[in-house]
Amino acid sequence: MFDIIKKKRDGLELSQEEIQLLIDGLVAGTIPDYQISAFLMALYFRGMNDVETAYLTSAVLQSGEQIDLSDIEGVIVDKHSTGGVGDKTTIVLAPLVAAAGVPVAKMSGRGLGHTGGTIDKLESFDGFDVDISIPDFIQKVKTHQVALCGQSANLVPADKKLYALRDVTATINNRALITSSIMSKKLACGADAIVIDMKLGNGAFIQTLEKAEDLGQMMIRIGQKMNRQVAIIISAMDQPLGFSVGNALEVKEAIETLKGNGPDDLVELCLVLGANMLLFANKVKSLEEGKETLQQLLDNGTALQKFKELIQSQGGDITMVDQPNLLPCSSHSYTYNSPQSGYISQLSAFEIGRASVALGAGRITKKSKIDLGAGILLKKKIGDRVEAGEPLAILYAANQACFEKATSYLDLAYDFSDNKVTASPIIIKTL
Amino acid sequence: MFDIIKKKRDGLELSQEEIQLLIDGLVAGTIPDYQISAFLMALYFRGMNDVETAYLTSAVLQSGEQIDLSDIEGVIVDKHSTGGVGDKTTIVLAPLVAAAGVPVAKMSGRGLGHTGGTIDKLESFDGFDVDISIPDFIQKVKTHQVALCGQSANLVPADKKLYALRDVTATINNRALITSSIMSKKLACGADAIVIDMKLGNGAFIQTLEKAEDLGQMMIRIGQKMNRQVAIIISAMDQPLGFSVGNALEVKEAIETLKGNGPDDLVELCLVLGANMLLFANKVKSLEEGKETLQQLLDNGTALQKFKELIQSQGGDITMVDQPNLLPCSSHSYTYNSPQSGYISQLSAFEIGRASVALGAGRITKKSKIDLGAGILLKKKIGDRVEAGEPLAILYAANQACFEKATSYLDLAYDFSDNKVTASPIIIKTL
Repeated sequence: MFDIIKKKRDGLELSQEEIQLLIDGLVAGTIPDYQISAFLMALYFRGMNDVETAYLTSAVLQSGEQIDLSDIEGVIVDKHSTGGVGDKTTIVLAPLVAAAGVPVAKMSGRGLGHTGGTIDKLESFDGFDVDISIPDFIQKVKTHQVALCGQSANLVPADKKLYALRDVTATINNRALITSSIMSKKLACGADAIVIDMKLGNGAFIQTLEKAEDLGQMMIRIGQKMNRQVAIIISAMDQPLGFSVGNALEVKEAIETLKGNGPDDLVELCLVLGANMLLFANKVKSLEEGKETLQQLLDNGTALQKFKELIQSQGGDITMVDQPNLLPCSSHSYTYNSPQSGYISQLSAFEIGRASVALGAGRITKKSKIDLGAGILLKKKIGDRVEAGEPLAILYAANQACFEKATSYLDLAYDFSDNKVTASPIIIKTL
Repeated sequence: MFDIIKKKRDGLELSQEEIQLLIDGLVAGTIPDYQISAFLMALYFRGMNDVETAYLTSAVLQSGEQIDLSDIEGVIVDKHSTGGVGDKTTIVLAPLVAAAGVPVAKMSGRGLGHTGGTIDKLESFDGFDVDISIPDFIQKVKTHQVALCGQSANLVPADKKLYALRDVTATINNRALITSSIMSKKLACGADAIVIDMKLGNGAFIQTLEKAEDLGQMMIRIGQKMNRQVAIIISAMDQPLGFSVGNALEVKEAIETLKGNGPDDLVELCLVLGANMLLFANKVKSLEEGKETLQQLLDNGTALQKFKELIQSQGGDITMVDQPNLLPCSSHSYTYNSPQSGYISQLSAFEIGRASVALGAGRITKKSKIDLGAGILLKKKIGDRVEAGEPLAILYAANQACFEKATSYLDLAYDFSDNKVTASPIIIKTL
């Protein structure tokens, strides 16, 4: 291991054997954490080329269980988001794409951060069960074209260990480590093709288009090496996606979107991501055709129907789909009013995310309990005209005490301009 | 700690508080090793400026016991070698400088590597005791002007922990870490001034003059910040120092040197290092005067007498000084003959060091037992003319089996030339 650290420190290329030895030793516990973390920091500075990254992805993938979805007919296309504030895309996309006849077998982790993950959010439905066995999961996809479940504990154990060390040693943000982490997880979940929603902006971990393109292109190349098609959609995360941030609040907005009444940015993102999924699944001949197909499924109620089918098939109460006011909602609310008049020129996703955590909607540690009813409902977004005293957002929390901290973040979130402002388009670039 | 790692990773300057927090957490065990090692690797790439390095030195120094030598009259000048093959300088220098009236209170660690350290070597004398208490140590210096003892276990605990991690994470070779490690140790041992023998060449960890100067200049600057005079003597370590490598073998050569019959390179190095020590102690007005003073003490037997006094005062058998053949010597010997005729153009200290370990003269781990009688006696050095079949070296070991591996390293150590070769001078530069 010393020689592997030294080699990477000196910028030399590691062999497949060396990378395998590293991952084997990591999982077996025979290489101590302090050597792994020194290696990660050396890698942070030196990087890995495509060949090394493909070997790393492969070794991490093979460190644990791999879900075999070959029983399911059709191309399994998975979607991954690099993480943003107010991102309820999966809740819309899964039934929408399934409604178009493409099987959606979605495994999802529980979230750490501003809100829970997709499976946390869907637990807003009474009875909805995400702890289903793999055979049951596969059977549900065969019957309903869609199922969602929590990630098996045995998937990519090497990634879990690496991530835990990266998280405490400031070595998260490295292209090769991010690529191998995402790709190994998606491949372990049985994906034939992968569409990645790469968030860019203050609410994401990627802050420049250059870095997003660089990371995205590496993912595409690593996908090629592993015989998987990969599409990268770089989308804006300078302000939250849609108007809701929080678990049940986001579910409500997703339901509205499935009813055809979604906010423009969320609808556009879902159509573009979904069209790419349909194209990879050979269901359509072009992205344009894909978007039209999906728009129809939203307009004619088929997507909403599929969503109800999904919720019901996993034990959830579908009366809550028709009556979203039955979904969890915090007992306390607070209206945050604009301190001044003008056009909103900034609405920081980063600060809104911090406010969301302060309200109890997110987990700080793995053991934190999420308040499903807490969160933020934005009334205005970038480019909107607002008058002093007019509501900018409504906050929800289990107790009044949360509002003071949350509003201190909101104070930092907004900027105003006397001149008209145009928000940047939601889709920045497709690779 | 995360923020400290991140700051260093991003090349920012750490504050005194941050460095203190790091060292306190390291010693208390509240910062896990995997964060320390990630920090060390970030530091390897980013370095530390003088201000940070002085804070680090100070924090490491204060992490444990500090020996108070203020009871001893005169300026306490310590000598440190960065480590080389056949380096028996301290055995000569300690009595030599003491004979000139400068108190020598020398604490020394046990060696890891090609041979033992100074105190290991001196244990070649029956009865010689290095485990003496600090008050006893100080009393001996007051009475005899010289004493040698093992390093107290409580000195610089932070350095011990840092070194153990650096050693297994490929982060030894960093200017700020080397400087703070050496300086904190010397200051903890009570040095008022420090003369550093910085070895340069294949048998040392520094391979270029540029790096030696860079490291040396930082040590001088950090010394200034801590009110200590520091002199840096850059000396050649492309071939072993003198003709002997091994513990008792080196003691024999040191005795010959104290009798005035030392090899040129060793004598010259001892005179230059010693003259710098005398100058710092205000015993002489110039280096030239210092060298002359010391040469006289070698020539007139005073230095040898002081050496006997040292050995006797710590319980050693001084009949072994007069009859060095009583010192340990391995039962097996092997003569390594020249494979060809010519001038020796290379005699790699690195390979000779490896051969020495193979013969049993060094420690591989802290728990290895040293064979005091094992080692190598060189018959020729760089620049010497040799005929094919003529002895190049005599090897000593406890069993025949060692010779095969040792000679395989010797095969790599030598190069020959048809043309005359001049060895590089022992003193390369003084800073």
